[in-house]
Amino acid sequence: MAPNKKKQLPSIEEFMPHLAYDSVIFGFNGQQLKILILEYQNTGFFALPGGFVKRNENVDDAVMRGLKERTGLDNIYLEQFHTFGSSSRSAPEIMRTILEANDYDVEDDYWMLDRFVSIAYYALINFNNVEPKPDELSDSISWYPLDQLPPLMMDHQEITEKALEILRDNLDKKLVGMKLLPQKFTMKELQKVYEEILGKKLRRTTFQRKMLSKDILVRHEKLFAGGAHKAPYLYSFKTVQTDQKASSEITHQTIKNTI
Amino acid sequence: MAPNKKKQLPSIEEFMPHLAYDSVIFGFNGQQLKILILEYQNTGFFALPGGFVKRNENVDDAVMRGLKERTGLDNIYLEQFHTFGSSSRSAPEIMRTILEANDYDVEDDYWMLDRFVSIAYYALINFNNVEPKPDELSDSISWYPLDQLPPLMMDHQEITEKALEILRDNLDKKLVGMKLLPQKFTMKELQKVYEEILGKKLRRTTFQRKMLSKDILVRHEKLFAGGAHKAPYLYSFKTVQTDQKASSEITHQTIKNTI
Repeated sequence: MAPNKKKQLPSIEEFMPHLAYDSVIFGFNGQQLKILILEYQNTGFFALPGGFVKRNENVDDAVMRGLKERTGLDNIYLEQFHTFGSSSRSAPEIMRTILEANDYDVEDDYWMLDRFVSIAYYALINFNNVEPKPDELSDSISWYPLDQLPPLMMDHQEITEKALEILRDNLDKKLVGMKLLPQKFTMKELQKVYEEILGKKLRRTTFQRKMLSKDILVRHEKLFAGGAHKAPYLYSFKTVQTDQKASSEITHQTIKNTI
Repeated sequence: MAPNKKKQLPSIEEFMPHLAYDSVIFGFNGQQLKILILEYQNTGFFALPGGFVKRNENVDDAVMRGLKERTGLDNIYLEQFHTFGSSSRSAPEIMRTILEANDYDVEDDYWMLDRFVSIAYYALINFNNVEPKPDELSDSISWYPLDQLPPLMMDHQEITEKALEILRDNLDKKLVGMKLLPQKFTMKELQKVYEEILGKKLRRTTFQRKMLSKDILVRHEKLFAGGAHKAPYLYSFKTVQTDQKASSEITHQTIKNTI
């Protein structure tokens, strides 16, 4: 009888120790804000999709690669928002449990059991456009509404909260760069996005007045659907670009403008 | 004759490989915005103050410790703003030059010559209140005006630009939390801060109207200095607190408010 052949673990030759990333993928379908969560096989652990950085890889590229490998999502515009560096966030026993539940043989000095700093990214997408797929470590990958999150492992709840905090700060600027709404949308659709992300109802008249005063919207034709007198106007964001990264860059001044 | 005794280098047993930090310390004296820059001995290299993270140390604590060791500055409120993770930012030859110029004997596989990801922090302080001191690696530590920066090594220019970009975004919120102005200040003093940080002149009447409409200021008594009819009002920020960290935390909502 052949010996029980364990699976091969990723090698420290390929990855940098101590450096991980996590991604908070917010999804919106016009009605509800959700977050993409993985469940690790045979462990009951729920987690944000994350991974490690190869020795010759830009961190940004590692996050894109890892997100594709772990969730099937591709071409998502991710924004780095914070690095979590507490020495108490390490959890070698959790990592060991996950690996052993997947039939890996784990030595005590294996690099994945070390302390990790996690560089966190977030994205905001329309989840009707994508179909996530779990990787081989995970039982499932699902969209969870903000108010129905399962208990998340390690500091993933804290990472999620911080991502939401950053998203809420300057929501106007963030929305311009992210493909959450169709290119043209009604004021009502825009209000729904704000309400879901801010977690509170807003007054229609106040919201409309504030949005129009911000000078970020262009008004287009009316959306005809029935009685013309009721048709709402369509709007788009002023800096509509197909390249989202470029759009976020040009809204920022650099030191070069002033020196 | 005794052999030439080289100095002892920091050990990989004490520090995590691949993880560094850099700090951008903005200083303002009421008139001009400057940045704190170190010059490495006998190399001509100019750099932001930076360092490495000990194996059992929170990243935030490492940055505070390192800033104190390298500049003499203590009790500075630092805010993390971005992690620089490009694989091309490594510069083993620069690190070797700096260490050898300080009479260290450097082996080819020494950990400081590896690739580093840098977690960057910034602070905004009144530089009349502090007197920086160079550490043993550095010739000098000096405040440089934004428009008179020396060429910085590696990607330190990019890190500086990003810090300024983040500072300019939401300047109102940042100023409330940072001890840049006296607790009570005139509108003219406030305008000078904005002008220096934004890098452009602002119209007095427009600035005053905008600031008052933001609901972040409290008006106090007039500053009497001569003819009473000319005396300007004094203002303070609404959320004046002695603990700056707490102040920035309470201005943010967390996920818990909504679920």
